[in-house]
Parts: sequence; structure tokens; C-alpha cells
Amino acid sequence: MPQNVLVIGGVALGPKAACRLKRLDPEATVTILDRGEKISYGGCGIPFFVSGEVSDASELQSTSFHMLRDEAFFRDTKDISVRNCTEALSIDRAAKTVRVRHLPTGAEETLGYDKLVIATGSTPRRLPIPGALLPGVQVVSDLDSAVAIRSGLTAGKVGSAVVIGAGFIGLEMAVALADMWGIETTVVEYADQILPTVLGPTMARIAQKHMEEKGVTFRLNAQVTAIQGEGATERVVVKSAAPSTDNNPAGEETLDAELVIMSVGVAPNSELAKAAGLTVSERGGIVVNDHLQTSDPDIYSAGDCVELTSAITGQPMYLPMGSLANRHGRIVGDNLAGLNRKIEGVLGSWCVKLFDQNAAGTGLTLAGAKRAGFDAIAVQVCQQDRAHFYPDKDFMFLELIAERGTRRVLGVQGVSLMGDALVARINAVAAVLGQAPSVDVLSNLELPYSPPFTTAMDILNMLGNVADNVLAGRNRSITPEQFAELFAKRDDDATFFIDCREWGNAGPFVEKYPGRWHNIPQGQLAHRLSEVPRDKHLVLVCNTGTRSYEAFSLLARAGYTDMANVAGGMVALHAAGVDI
Amino acid sequence: MPQNVLVIGGVALGPKAACRLKRLDPEATVTILDRGEKISYGGCGIPFFVSGEVSDASELQSTSFHMLRDEAFFRDTKDISVRNCTEALSIDRAAKTVRVRHLPTGAEETLGYDKLVIATGSTPRRLPIPGALLPGVQVVSDLDSAVAIRSGLTAGKVGSAVVIGAGFIGLEMAVALADMWGIETTVVEYADQILPTVLGPTMARIAQKHMEEKGVTFRLNAQVTAIQGEGATERVVVKSAAPSTDNNPAGEETLDAELVIMSVGVAPNSELAKAAGLTVSERGGIVVNDHLQTSDPDIYSAGDCVELTSAITGQPMYLPMGSLANRHGRIVGDNLAGLNRKIEGVLGSWCVKLFDQNAAGTGLTLAGAKRAGFDAIAVQVCQQDRAHFYPDKDFMFLELIAERGTRRVLGVQGVSLMGDALVARINAVAAVLGQAPSVDVLSNLELPYSPPFTTAMDILNMLGNVADNVLAGRNRSITPEQFAELFAKRDDDATFFIDCREWGNAGPFVEKYPGRWHNIPQGQLAHRLSEVPRDKHLVLVCNTGTRSYEAFSLLARAGYTDMANVAGGMVALHAAGVDI
Repeated sequence: MPQNVLVIGGVALGPKAACRLKRLDPEATVTILDRGEKISYGGCGIPFFVSGEVSDASELQSTSFHMLRDEAFFRDTKDISVRNCTEALSIDRAAKTVRVRHLPTGAEETLGYDKLVIATGSTPRRLPIPGALLPGVQVVSDLDSAVAIRSGLTAGKVGSAVVIGAGFIGLEMAVALADMWGIETTVVEYADQILPTVLGPTMARIAQKHMEEKGVTFRLNAQVTAIQGEGATERVVVKSAAPSTDNNPAGEETLDAELVIMSVGVAPNSELAKAAGLTVSERGGIVVNDHLQTSDPDIYSAGDCVELTSAITGQPMYLPMGSLANRHGRIVGDNLAGLNRKIEGVLGSWCVKLFDQNAAGTGLTLAGAKRAGFDAIAVQVCQQDRAHFYPDKDFMFLELIAERGTRRVLGVQGVSLMGDALVARINAVAAVLGQAPSVDVLSNLELPYSPPFTTAMDILNMLGNVADNVLAGRNRSITPEQFAELFAKRDDDATFFIDCREWGNAGPFVEKYPGRWHNIPQGQLAHRLSEVPRDKHLVLVCNTGTRSYEAFSLLARAGYTDMANVAGGMVALHAAGVDI
Repeated sequence: MPQNVLVIGGVALGPKAACRLKRLDPEATVTILDRGEKISYGGCGIPFFVSGEVSDASELQSTSFHMLRDEAFFRDTKDISVRNCTEALSIDRAAKTVRVRHLPTGAEETLGYDKLVIATGSTPRRLPIPGALLPGVQVVSDLDSAVAIRSGLTAGKVGSAVVIGAGFIGLEMAVALADMWGIETTVVEYADQILPTVLGPTMARIAQKHMEEKGVTFRLNAQVTAIQGEGATERVVVKSAAPSTDNNPAGEETLDAELVIMSVGVAPNSELAKAAGLTVSERGGIVVNDHLQTSDPDIYSAGDCVELTSAITGQPMYLPMGSLANRHGRIVGDNLAGLNRKIEGVLGSWCVKLFDQNAAGTGLTLAGAKRAGFDAIAVQVCQQDRAHFYPDKDFMFLELIAERGTRRVLGVQGVSLMGDALVARINAVAAVLGQAPSVDVLSNLELPYSPPFTTAMDILNMLGNVADNVLAGRNRSITPEQFAELFAKRDDDATFFIDCREWGNAGPFVEKYPGRWHNIPQGQLAHRLSEVPRDKHLVLVCNTGTRSYEAFSLLARAGYTDMANVAGGMVALHAAGVDI
């Protein structure tokens, strides 16, 4: 007797699971329900549709060979029934039925199942503030909301916009608005940096500075407390949570905008599962085992509505990512067909394009590692991502988070103008991160090398080496922010700053900061130790950190202990916008 | 008592080991000997100097911060003595001395050591044929030979060139000559494909076709039997080893060229070690243990002069790669300083830029796997390496080699116009390949995803999935070459070709090959099974292989068994130059 499988939810996971099942078990009867009119679209493409890079919304719903993934497509090419505009109202697990309503007509009926897949996804959160539902306030939820946003843009109704939330979607939307439509865009973020949960503060500052240079304004440490409608304009009341800085006036301000995009994360759609008595976590994710079965073994779930387990902390993790939903969709299909596949813990790998800048990462940030209870350190490397003699090249910044003691790698993040080259490094780390590699694994990675692609010692090899040296106490570095703090107090004369570059580079700074900025080229340091005080904290800086590390080693041999070098050197200071 | 370390060889490995040692053990006395005048240069950059992309040879010898790595640099910044133009004549292991000769003066002396590093590298092979030493015949051995080649080019003396050997350096040199200097360049290769030891035949054909479109001529299956000097011109006698084809006239031909570059591999410089009684393998590599010690524990060796162990086969492997020499140099430095570091087996990861095309890989090819005794299969995937709706994208071809039974991944290679994106995929595989991963590891890799970078199911996930299906018998594919063979015999009517695309794409082929090329769009196949014969071998083709796999599944359900789909579809056929 062929099995009867019902799939609730028609985006990413649901269709993937259904199609895989049908390929493995062609006799199965498979039905996909979806509340919406359009199904099986690439939600991650919405910012690129809003920007205009993707010209038509239907492209997001098409296959790579330009066939629209609609009901007819699923029926004719996959032998799968699709019922769109159909909401699942409740699940009767004992009877193995789902009560559904056809939204346009209101007609209800009861559908039986042998196996059920809950692929209900997530819903963008809305802040619980006055005005959150005003007409100019949009969340990026589905193709329809994307079409609505873009209609407003093409109609020329939007001169300025406020994006609430500096996560992936918020930043991608800010890029879409500012880059393609020339809209004056302000991003308001509650945390003190952009991409707060996935990127370290130095890298975040580098990416933010690039976006500012492209015309996007930021309010960090800032909370939107209300949105007030005034005709076609919304007035966004922003309350700063931090002392006044150049970027952030203290107190309260009001930003006028014709468009407000609220992009403050998503919440799993788990009400249906909860009402059916399935186990749902405190944070709202449906709980699944490593076969992606819910607490009812006949009901599978995956994608944005479930909670997973972090491969790094072993703790529950919510990871609403389209790529993961696709991979897990295949595993659900496998298991529905009896193949007995298990999932692994998840890492949280990601990448994002921010104008010409790119950021990417996998695993934990330093803050995240500390929150998870790790005794963690971060090391940073700044290096050209081509052989230094190769003409077409640019810098890449990487940060590695490692656990002291075990030397275990907990995460790597980075920024670079060379996007694919950056992702190339994160790919290598993501491939091994689940196995709790030591930093030596990075030192010894055998990655492809040729001068047009990378350096003979790949930046990941270097990152492992630097971590090895730092963990062994052979190197100690400070971030651009830590440098900025020390340099702001330079007149206290407690810190002695040594520029290890040649005079041609260092001279202008010596002249700008007389008595505070000292130049001893690294090649001369051995003979000029008498110029280096023994009673002050030493800060060593060069162009990217290579010579200052050499200087650090030399001074350590000479008995100096109270010192640090600036990770990424002047290149990092400049990229992070340190005023020097 | 500080240790006295002597390093024989001043390129890549030697300086790296010396510098690392000095940072860890500043008291050590370290001396580097080198036969040549210039040391510590980036040999991998030579083709880019010959092309002119790197304008001055000194850039290859400089640090990333533009300091020349000469004797003064090593003395002043590293506290390391360098003796260039100094040849090591013999090692007296009992006395722990090395007899050396200063080449310009002929003066000899004996230097003592506590620990010795043999970093003598490799020498380009010359074919044992008449004329191999003629003045117009160059090998790419060191900076001096590079300067000689480029001088000839800048003097306008070279109108045509023959490159013997289609390995990395041969092809890079062919690109340099043809691209930047407009020189009529012919590459002669003994094997039946370019990059024969590292790339599969389909990928090699794709890369070769691109190079041909850029103006490079190839002679495959062809052996150079003699070079005859005629004044400024060398006459290269090429004997074809294969039946005549469009590309390769049968029999013997003579190619005239002002420049002949012989690039037929390198041989380890192990004579010194052998004469000192150290263990040297049959193939000539110095034998080292996993601490990089030779058979004399006081003598370390690494780099191009040693033999290593393959992480995949466990067998000896010769891998003369600059990047590896750098990583192993650090390990030698560590062990000299007493840190007790071990090396892992090696994979053979590589990448090469060939005009706008790029090729990269890691691990074994199908031929290599079979030679090593594996019961191996190859699967190929062709996919756009961006979300299909993202405007700026291109195809990537990947091939995976896996062992039947164990499902173990043995290697992955690929070609793509998107070089960094290709290396990104090889990086991920290289990071895990040493651990004998199953194809499921690739299916489940959690790589960063965003539409400007990749597809929701990364091509590596797809590659794992396709391998999974093929190993389970759920899919069976043929290469473009296998297709071409079958299609050439189409009038035998033993094979039935079905184009699974829509009429708009398939129609022209149906009209061109009446009665031989059949069109059943995949969406209509279920209703048109009566048109599919049950007594013929079926070949299914679509654009990239997705729809033909769907068709394969559908036909399998309907009881068809004698069939295959074309891996990479029409895109692969076109890229590989199949005439259709």
C-alpha cells in the first residue's frame, strides 16, 4: 500500500522533501499545502529583487532552466499535488488527519496522512512598539511583501528609508535601497555593532565603514521606540542607548522616512505543532531528533520552524537559513522513504555582500564563545589574498576564535573586497569545524596554491600559525579598537608606540605626533634597543602585523614582556576607521 | 650552549625553517648556504614575471612590504647568516661537518653543525634527446633562467615558441607567451590530455578548448624526439604517438620556434644526501619520517627534495609544491627548536589560471585512483555557481572520484571561469579529504550561502548527492566523451537519444538529426512513455543534467534499465567541444 504523505509548507524545505521522496518512492502520494498563492520561491533572493538586480519576481520562483515552480510544474514533472491558498488549521495525531481551509472560499476539509511534514517556516518579528503596523512599515516576509516594497520604489514614492535591524536582511535591504535606488537610508541597530551575533567588532566596523562610504547612515546602540504616521511619511522615533558619539547623538531623535523596513529577526511558526501537542522549545522551535522527527515519529519537521543543535556548543541553536532547509529537506525525503539518515550539529555558516565589501563566517564569535562558557581568545590576520607580487590583489581580514587550553577552533569570520576568495577560506573552516579541530589543523591545511589565487602560506595557514603563537605566549596582539583606546590616552605617556616600518611610511606619523610616535624600523631594532623603554607598555605597529610580530619576538628575546602588537597593523587601523 | 644549525638551500623551505627556528630559539646560530646568487624568491611567480604581469624580478625576491630578501635582510632582521654562491660539496655525518665551495673564488672550507637541514629542492628535467641543450631551449629553473627567457622576449627575438609538457608550469608559460607577448605557441604533450596527472579528461578538454580559443595550439599523444638548431631558430621534431585526428597529424612533423621551453617535471636534488649515506627512495626523493627527519636524526629535510606519503593511498608521493615547502619549513623550524611537530600525509591540492579559465583540484583523478588500486567511479556536476536568479554568474564543472563500497571521496577536480569560487570548493574538500570522508560528508557540508556567492544547495552538496545517487544505482551518467562515441554511431540505431528540454531548445537538434534526436520535455515524459523504446539503450540529455536525472528517475519507475544521462548536459558537451 503506497504511503500518503502530507507536507505543510511550500517553500524550500517542503518541496525539497517532497521531490526527493517521490524520486525514491514513486508510489507515494504526496501533497503540499501552502497558505500563500506562490510556493517554492527563493526567499533569500528578495533583497536582490527589491534592488532590481533580479528584474521579475517570477525568477525567484523559477527553476534554473526558467520553468515556473507552480502547481502545474509539480503535478506534471514531479507527480506531486499542490494546494496553495490553503491553510492547515489543526492536526489530529490520533486520527492522523489535518484540518485545512481553502482561504479564498473558506471551504474546510480533513486530509488524512501516513506521514506528515511540518515545514511551516518562520515569520519576521515585529517590534512591539506603537506604529509597528502602519502602512509604510514593511517586514521582508514573502514574495508579496517584496513586490509591495518594490512597487513603492518604482512609483518614486520613497526618498528616505529607515531599516530597523543590522542583520543580514536589514543590511542587504539597506544596500538594495541605497545602491540601486539612491534612497537616503539609515540603519538603526540596538547592539553596538552591525551583524552583532555573527561578526566580531573589528570586522563589523570595517564593513560598516565601507557602507558609510557608500552613503548608508547608521545609528548603533539605538532603539526605535515608536513609529508615528504623518500622511505618506512615517516618523521613526529613535532613542539612543549609549553616550553621544559622532555617529550617535545622545537622547532621542526622529527620523522621517517614507519606507520603514523592520528586520529584527524571525520567529519559528510552531503554533500548529504546539497545538497538536508536539514538543516545542521555550524559544519556540519545534524539537526534532537527529532523524528530523518531532516528538511524534510519524511527523517530521525541519527548516525555519525547528530548533537544532550547535555542533560547537552542543546546545540548542536556531538557524533559519535557506541553504540548510534545502539540505535537511533532502534528509526528510530520505527518511520518509526509509533510508535512515541522520543530521549533524550545525555551525552557523554565512556570507553577505555589502556593496563591494563582503563578510562571511562560520561558528562562534568571541562574544558568542564567551557567552557559551568557553575560555576563548580571538586572533586577527590581515593579508593580501594573492601572492604579494601578483598585480591584482586586495587585503583580507580574518579573525579566529579559539579555546585556550584545548586550542580548539570555535569560529572564523572575515571581511574582504574579494568575496569569493573570502568564502573560499570560510568554506575550508566550515568543512572541518564540526570536528573540533585544533588551530594546528588550520596551520597545516593543504589548500590549492598558485600566485593568481592566494599566497604560498595561505591566510588560513597564517591564521593558524598566529593563533598557535598567541596561545603559546609567543605573540600578543591588540585590536584596532584597543589601539584607539590606548592612543587616545597617549599623553599619559604610559604607552610607548613603536612604528616598525621604514621612515618613508612612519615619518609622517612621527611628525604628526612628536614625542608620542616612535619609529624604529624592524631591521634596525636589534641595534637600537637602548631607545626602547623598559618601564612602559609597548605597542608595536607596522603595515599588516608581520614586522611588528618580528619586533615582538626580538624584544621578547631582549627581556621585554609588557607589550603587544597591533593585529593587522596600519591597514586594519585604516579599514576600521581609527582616526590617526 | 646554543645550537649551530646549517641550512643547505635558500629558497622557500630553507629560509622559512631558519626564520622560524630563530624566533623560537634566538640563541641558535643559523647559516643558510645557497649555490645561487639570489635566494628566498617566489619560484611559483616565474611565469608571471615572464608574462610581464610582475614587472621586475626583484619583486619575486621581496617581502610583502617590498624589502629585498637578500643577505643584509636576513642578517639585520633575522640574525641569520647567508652565504650565497656557495655550494655544499659533501656531508661528513660522523664529524658533523659540511664541505663547501665558494663558487666565484673556488675557495673551500669545512663548516660544522649540530643540526643540518637539507633544502636542496629540485631541478627541472631535460628530455634525453638530441638538441636538449641548444641555446634556444630553456627550462624554468630559477630567477636567472626566467630573466633569460624574458630578455629574449623583450628583445623581440621570439615569434613562435614550443612548450614541451602540458603540466602546470608548461601551461602557465604558454599563457604568458601567447597572452602577453602574442607569440604563436604550441604545447606538445606526451599524454592524451593536458594536466594528465591531476585532472580528468573531460575537465582537461574544457580547459584545453578555452586555451585553443585564446590561440594556443596543442599536440597531444605527441613526443618530441629531437631539437635541431638552425641559427636563431630551433626545429622541434614531434612524433605523434596516436592515429591522426584534427588536432594531431599522424607521423612526424617539425615545428619551428625561436624559443623552446622544456617543462617536463622536476627531479629531487638528492645527490648530496645520497652521497652522505642517507636513505633515498628509488624515485630519488630523500626519505623522511613524520618529523621531517632523514635517516640521520640530526639531519632534517623537506620541500622538493623529499618523498612524502599520500594521505589517500598511504603510498609514497612526490609533491614539489612551494606552498607545502613553506608549511613544512615551519615544522622543521619547530622541530629544530624542540617542539616535536608531526606532518600529515599529503593530498596534492593545486590550482592554475589558464587565461580566463581556471582549473583546480585535490586528491586523485579517476585514472590515478584506478592506478592506486581503488574500485573507483567518477561523477560530474555542472551548475551555475550563483543562485540561478542572480544576474552575474557562470557555470562550474566539478568531478568527484569516489570508491565504490566504502563511498569514500578520493578526489575532486574542476574548471570554471570563476576562479576564486572554484578554489572555494576545492578548499572545502581539501580540508576534509585526509580523513577519508564519505560522499555524504559533501552532501551535508554547511557552507556559507547567499545568492551573490553560491546556490542554496551548494555545488559541493549537489556533487555529494549525485555521487550518493550513482553509488546507490539511482542515477547513471556518461561523460561528454562517452556521449560523443555513442553519438558518432547514431546511425546504428542502437541508442535512442532523448532531449528532455522544451522544444525551443531541443527543436534545432531534432531538425538537424531527423530520426536520431528525439524531444520529450521532462514534464511530458510521464504521458509519453509509449514513445520510449524498450529495446534500445537510452541516452538522456538536458541543459546541465538536472532534468535528465528527473527523466532517468521517472523511466526507472516505469521499468527502464538500459539508460544513462549526460553529466553536465548540453553545457558540458559544448564546453568540452563535442561536435553536435
